[in-house]
Amino acid sequence: MIDTLNSNLVEDKANILIEALPYIQKFHNKVIVIKYGGSAMLDETLKESVMRDVALLKSVGIHPVIVHGGGKEITKWVELNGMKSEFYNGFRITDSDTMKIVEMVLGGVNKGLVSHMESLGVKAVGLSGKDGSMLRVKKKEIDNVDIGFVGDITKVNTQLINTLLKDDYVPVICPIGLDKNYKMYNINADEAASEIAISLEAEKLAFLTDTEGFYLNFNDESSLISRISVSDSQKLIREGKINGGMLPKMENCIRAAKNGVKRVHILDGRKMHSLLLEIFTKKGIGTLIYR
Amino acid sequence: MIDTLNSNLVEDKANILIEALPYIQKFHNKVIVIKYGGSAMLDETLKESVMRDVALLKSVGIHPVIVHGGGKEITKWVELNGMKSEFYNGFRITDSDTMKIVEMVLGGVNKGLVSHMESLGVKAVGLSGKDGSMLRVKKKEIDNVDIGFVGDITKVNTQLINTLLKDDYVPVICPIGLDKNYKMYNINADEAASEIAISLEAEKLAFLTDTEGFYLNFNDESSLISRISVSDSQKLIREGKINGGMLPKMENCIRAAKNGVKRVHILDGRKMHSLLLEIFTKKGIGTLIYR
Amino acid sequence: MIDTLNSNLVEDKANILIEALPYIQKFHNKVIVIKYGGSAMLDETLKESVMRDVALLKSVGIHPVIVHGGGKEITKWVELNGMKSEFYNGFRITDSDTMKIVEMVLGGVNKGLVSHMESLGVKAVGLSGKDGSMLRVKKKEIDNVDIGFVGDITKVNTQLINTLLKDDYVPVICPIGLDKNYKMYNINADEAASEIAISLEAEKLAFLTDTEGFYLNFNDESSLISRISVSDSQKLIREGKINGGMLPKMENCIRAAKNGVKRVHILDGRKMHSLLLEIFTKKGIGTLIYR
Amino acid sequence: MIDTLNSNLVEDKANILIEALPYIQKFHNKVIVIKYGGSAMLDETLKESVMRDVALLKSVGIHPVIVHGGGKEITKWVELNGMKSEFYNGFRITDSDTMKIVEMVLGGVNKGLVSHMESLGVKAVGLSGKDGSMLRVKKKEIDNVDIGFVGDITKVNTQLINTLLKDDYVPVICPIGLDKNYKMYNINADEAASEIAISLEAEKLAFLTDTEGFYLNFNDESSLISRISVSDSQKLIREGKINGGMLPKMENCIRAAKNGVKRVHILDGRKMHSLLLEIFTKKGIGTLIYR
Amino acid sequence: MIDTLNSNLVEDKANILIEALPYIQKFHNKVIVIKYGGSAMLDETLKESVMRDVALLKSVGIHPVIVHGGGKEITKWVELNGMKSEFYNGFRITDSDTMKIVEMVLGGVNKGLVSHMESLGVKAVGLSGKDGSMLRVKKKEIDNVDIGFVGDITKVNTQLINTLLKDDYVPVICPIGLDKNYKMYNINADEAASEIAISLEAEKLAFLTDTEGFYLNFNDESSLISRISVSDSQKLIREGKINGGMLPKMENCIRAAKNGVKRVHILDGRKMHSLLLEIFTKKGIGTLIYR
Amino acid sequence: MIDTLNSNLVEDKANILIEALPYIQKFHNKVIVIKYGGSAMLDETLKESVMRDVALLKSVGIHPVIVHGGGKEITKWVELNGMKSEFYNGFRITDSDTMKIVEMVLGGVNKGLVSHMESLGVKAVGLSGKDGSMLRVKKKEIDNVDIGFVGDITKVNTQLINTLLKDDYVPVICPIGLDKNYKMYNINADEAASEIAISLEAEKLAFLTDTEGFYLNFNDESSLISRISVSDSQKLIREGKINGGMLPKMENCIRAAKNGVKRVHILDGRKMHSLLLEIFTKKGIGTLIYR
Repeated sequence: MIDTLNSNLVEDKANILIEALPYIQKFHNKVIVIKYGGSAMLDETLKESVMRDVALLKSVGIHPVIVHGGGKEITKWVELNGMKSEFYNGFRITDSDTMKIVEMVLGGVNKGLVSHMESLGVKAVGLSGKDGSMLRVKKKEIDNVDIGFVGDITKVNTQLINTLLKDDYVPVICPIGLDKNYKMYNINADEAASEIAISLEAEKLAFLTDTEGFYLNFNDESSLISRISVSDSQKLIREGKINGGMLPKMENCIRAAKNGVKRVHILDGRKMHSLLLEIFTKKGIGTLIYR
Repeated sequence: MIDTLNSNLVEDKANILIEALPYIQKFHNKVIVIKYGGSAMLDETLKESVMRDVALLKSVGIHPVIVHGGGKEITKWVELNGMKSEFYNGFRITDSDTMKIVEMVLGGVNKGLVSHMESLGVKAVGLSGKDGSMLRVKKKEIDNVDIGFVGDITKVNTQLINTLLKDDYVPVICPIGLDKNYKMYNINADEAASEIAISLEAEKLAFLTDTEGFYLNFNDESSLISRISVSDSQKLIREGKINGGMLPKMENCIRAAKNGVKRVHILDGRKMHSLLLEIFTKKGIGTLIYR
Repeated sequence: MIDTLNSNLVEDKANILIEALPYIQKFHNKVIVIKYGGSAMLDETLKESVMRDVALLKSVGIHPVIVHGGGKEITKWVELNGMKSEFYNGFRITDSDTMKIVEMVLGGVNKGLVSHMESLGVKAVGLSGKDGSMLRVKKKEIDNVDIGFVGDITKVNTQLINTLLKDDYVPVICPIGLDKNYKMYNINADEAASEIAISLEAEKLAFLTDTEGFYLNFNDESSLISRISVSDSQKLIREGKINGGMLPKMENCIRAAKNGVKRVHILDGRKMHSLLLEIFTKKGIGTLIYR
Repeated sequence: MIDTLNSNLVEDKANILIEALPYIQKFHNKVIVIKYGGSAMLDETLKESVMRDVALLKSVGIHPVIVHGGGKEITKWVELNGMKSEFYNGFRITDSDTMKIVEMVLGGVNKGLVSHMESLGVKAVGLSGKDGSMLRVKKKEIDNVDIGFVGDITKVNTQLINTLLKDDYVPVICPIGLDKNYKMYNINADEAASEIAISLEAEKLAFLTDTEGFYLNFNDESSLISRISVSDSQKLIREGKINGGMLPKMENCIRAAKNGVKRVHILDGRKMHSLLLEIFTKKGIGTLIYR
Repeated sequence: MIDTLNSNLVEDKANILIEALPYIQKFHNKVIVIKYGGSAMLDETLKESVMRDVALLKSVGIHPVIVHGGGKEITKWVELNGMKSEFYNGFRITDSDTMKIVEMVLGGVNKGLVSHMESLGVKAVGLSGKDGSMLRVKKKEIDNVDIGFVGDITKVNTQLINTLLKDDYVPVICPIGLDKNYKMYNINADEAASEIAISLEAEKLAFLTDTEGFYLNFNDESSLISRISVSDSQKLIREGKINGGMLPKMENCIRAAKNGVKRVHILDGRKMHSLLLEIFTKKGIGTLIYR
Repeated sequence: MIDTLNSNLVEDKANILIEALPYIQKFHNKVIVIKYGGSAMLDETLKESVMRDVALLKSVGIHPVIVHGGGKEITKWVELNGMKSEFYNGFRITDSDTMKIVEMVLGGVNKGLVSHMESLGVKAVGLSGKDGSMLRVKKKEIDNVDIGFVGDITKVNTQLINTLLKDDYVPVICPIGLDKNYKMYNINADEAASEIAISLEAEKLAFLTDTEGFYLNFNDESSLISRISVSDSQKLIREGKINGGMLPKMENCIRAAKNGVKRVHILDGRKMHSLLLEIFTKKGIGTLIYR
């Protein structure tokens, strides 16, 4: 016997499932690239929440592709090994020894995400841009300063990703690439996510960040932008309304949206299940950049 | 900005989606046979609810197969055409003219369900057991009384159903079969659903009924049985605890459960979204008969 | 030992088979749409003859698709149910109740043809234009008179037909369609056959009629036209030489021939095996309309 | 207008096509091995008749496989080249030089049949048992007499034949095989046909001969046997009722019938279209040996 | 224990295998047409060497296609049968009787090559241009002189070759073609090889000849040309530097190179393994004609 | 012109290619698991030699699978991070922090091999046993001593490897596994190679070691064993003739050979191209263990 209280809950359940329905249909067999980083990677509860969301996406026939950075772990290990962490314009100055540590640390993070997903019954494979020569780069040129092994992506080879998607694996990718001499380079994870999404002709690209989205006035929480077109975004940049830290992220969003990714999202990785809720609810959350 | 109130709702949404997750995974690409009848067919709101549930199942990769009867519509048209509706032991006495009306009425109901599903974006095809010689029967023998063209299923030819499932159609089936001379016969819809589920090796068979499930004591609503094994069900029958109307339904449940259908359910078709909630929630609803 | 008499017969047999050979080769794996109606549907002997012809076509690797009307059966049931049969310009005025009866009657005819074919070892499936949203329509506009649920085809969705043809089923289709709100409409069967043939890029479209073909002078049997081009047909129409009843049929022939159907035939459904003889003999029979 | 005379003919045509129908269905996609030789090969009119029959079989979805000998052509060329034709027990004594001529002559006959079929629109490929190592042999042992390069088949490798059948070619095979050292040997064409039919699990094996079939009393034409079982055939042999020339042919028939070929036929190659008539008429012709 | 001597050899082995590596990669799954003739066909040791080379090519995933002539064998048999061998402008004057002998002799050579390859474990099939109507021709017109059944290729039907390559057979082809009336004609083997290579879009076409390659000055062995472009070749012809015998061969090379065959080679068939060495070593041997 | 000196070299080249031929045929499409470690990993010249060998194998259609350890690199990084390297019975005592470093170091080695192969044109993917839950383990039990996160393989899930092999990638695997709680464990690389070879039903398993093979008397280089059966190997062990360091390696060889791997090899990784020479030469090198 179902009592009144239950009955209301039951009705809510049904309604929520029914709200989610059109989105499950819409995204079936579609690729969604997720840039995973920030608090959502550091906080174990949030991490579990993201991993579960990915498992849900996979289970309803969506193809998630994860791109992640290493963030504070890299700095920790660089210093543990008696080296200095130096940055220029936001990019880590990466000599040969540092690059080796970057690779090892990213590798550890990468396979950690893989086993986490596997424990939830999701088939996952950890890759770097070396695998199948997936990410090809050239040395980043910036103000004539030599920042070492930091690369700009010149080509994304999607064959390996597609091989794995076809057999229902979730590719988990760390942003390391190879130049034409097969030397390895560090890549900005946002740039890697954006370029991979473009090459895969992804339906969606979602950045999990430590902010609720873009603000018109970043001192005013109420100025959060829900949806913004590429051209309006470019206008905001020209008007200097996007502050320093957000500028490169916004540029990666714009590049993706201009090059065929239908919907690009800035989501709040500090909120539980923000990925799930963005995809499966009518209102969405965070900021959507569209063409 | 998400306010506190929303925030709770948002959390609920996430939790409900997460509860549903293991079931979506579990039933992916599985066949679920649904016997559709009773109030759920007569009441337009309930009908819409069932159709939406079927659409949801389909959209998450489950293969629903619908079997329906014609119920009161048949009686109405038989009488409109100046004939008498007579029954023996619960079976409609079906002479040749009646059989013709039965087929026309079931055909109308059948194609009505098809267009309803199509309007929800579900690809559906209406079939009778004549199509592809799907249901083969022999004349039912009952107490040496001639009840006319009423058949017992001797064989279910699943080839056509599988052709359609493979291309993502929902088969909607009305219970008419052909004997060895290709004469047509009326079949009890519960029996048809049960035999089709067995032949398709369905994961689930769900009967939408005008009751909450089986009761230990049918005068006492609190005696609803949540789960019962085949052997306990048979014991209840031997002890005479299953009342007349429910007896044939229980026998169809038992036959299905004994012949390879993993889970057989009696659901309350008078409740909105009972199908959805049975499949996607941990507790389930109604009565489950299992082997 | 083969005697002289037999010997002649034997030679005839061989010659007839040899005459049929190039046509079997030519039509292998090709789609032939057959509009089935009139006497060939009412007379049981003729019906058997058509069904056997379809079975022969199927058995030699041709893909027949049957489109049928309901003709006199509809009028009978409409009147049995106390309604009036009214026509405007040859179209049945179809209110909501009439439409329901039209669907039921066509459904009965449809499944009757299916079981007839099945009894001959042909795999058949009965469909209406609702199944898989095969026939989409808009309300027919005619002289500002409201003739109710009579539709003009706006789109033929051939996916379901192709799914069935691929697995060697003969689709048997009754001409009911859905408008954009998924309301059902009655369609002229000749128009349905013509549009289906065009969408399937059929090799042939054959109308089984109660006439030997088109006559230059319909009072003179000797004026039967064997072959006529689309442009000559249009000239005859402009010259007023096609009489009222045949005019819409001729227009359906012309539309099909102009839109990619290689050969359109008017056959005499009152002659046994006219379909077979048209396809497998050098001379053909009836009238051929070609581009 | 169809006149009375035509009308009768038309009816005959229809009836003959209808008689052929069940056989076209029955043999669709089935393999039929035809041993081609004797008058049917020497007389140009009969040859054309056989080639047309093969084309008809192919066009209705049957897979014919032709095995032929070289007969009188070989003797002619052997003698043209100043060698003697000698036989022992019906087998040509084949030294190395003779074998070379045998191969060249059979090759000429073989490719001649191929171009004849191609001219009728049939895709054909001429093979010897060397191709794809199709026929493997060992030297025939017979009464301790060395008859040279005459072989007994030890293995039929059907892979090449199946490759060709799958892409709708008619394999035309001359009976030359390879021993374990890849030396070539002449093979009796009847034996080759029989072994190939067994290995292909052919539906039918038909020998085109210069007789109407087997006779109980070979002086009495009226004693022609229509059907005979393997065990009755063996009885006839034991009773000495099969005369010398027919004995090896009967033995090849029996071996095929005992090893899985459903129907083995002796047909009169001197009659036009005997192959066609055997396959497509109810009575069949010649003698059928069945298990 | 490996001693010093072995150790050197071992190193050589490794180096040679490593040199061959890029070529094995490069030609994997590519088609190489080989015109086989001259000494390489007459000398048994050279023949064995060519056959082994073909086997090696096949074993590393290359698809060789062999085209051969009959050369001196034809003249021998023509004369053995009391006819005269006459030539006009290098073409054998071929009457109907001669054509029959040509076909028989080529057939013998053809099947001989097949059994040779089979003995080396290579699956081979012997074909003439009649099989599958592979080579279609028209009568060669030359100075208004009737040279009989000598044909110019008008079309190469590659379907049969592709069927066989797909299932890993080596096609061995003798140059006989069919005109539009399916009469057979003799074809120059170099022309056949060139046209087949063009139609197959072959990666390479190699002519095994009795010369080391093209010479700038054919009296001076040191003037052997290693590589030459099509345009330079045409210049040499215009300048009259290609002598009579080599002219038609050069023209076949040029036609192939101009019509899509990437590399055309003249190789010395009198040297052991020239085919192997050309393909698997950096320097190559003989003369390469490229576009 | 080819001079005498060249001519000898040319002949050698041909002979070496011809010797390699049967092996290329034999191993086509076969899986060969290579345990890569020791000097062959530390010395850059030897490493290049192994990588080139793998590329050669791949290019001729063999499917290499690489399993590697981390050896001295792990100890270096453990100590760099201020921890102690302790061993029990040859197994590294692995606490949680050590395990993290093990994973990072192995990851670095792994992706380094991948980019090396990619630079040679080989498609490679670096995996650990976490990816696709490929290696499942339980904690190793050894003398009741807790050696931490050291695992014994309980199951090899080959699905991911097969997905990659099918699309022509070389899987490069480091020996880390997951227990039933998805905790990670270090695995002995020899054991991992052996178990992976068994599960893949590999044709060959080759251990690249710092020895020439097994010696009957390990003080006597001339006592190198070329081939030894499983039962003789077991006898040697029982007789105590296998010394400590080689014992576990021998046991891994025996387990593989007993469980379906046709040929298991101990090769000298200090010799250039030992892998290539073992596979492509008649004599082979090192020690072969066979069933």
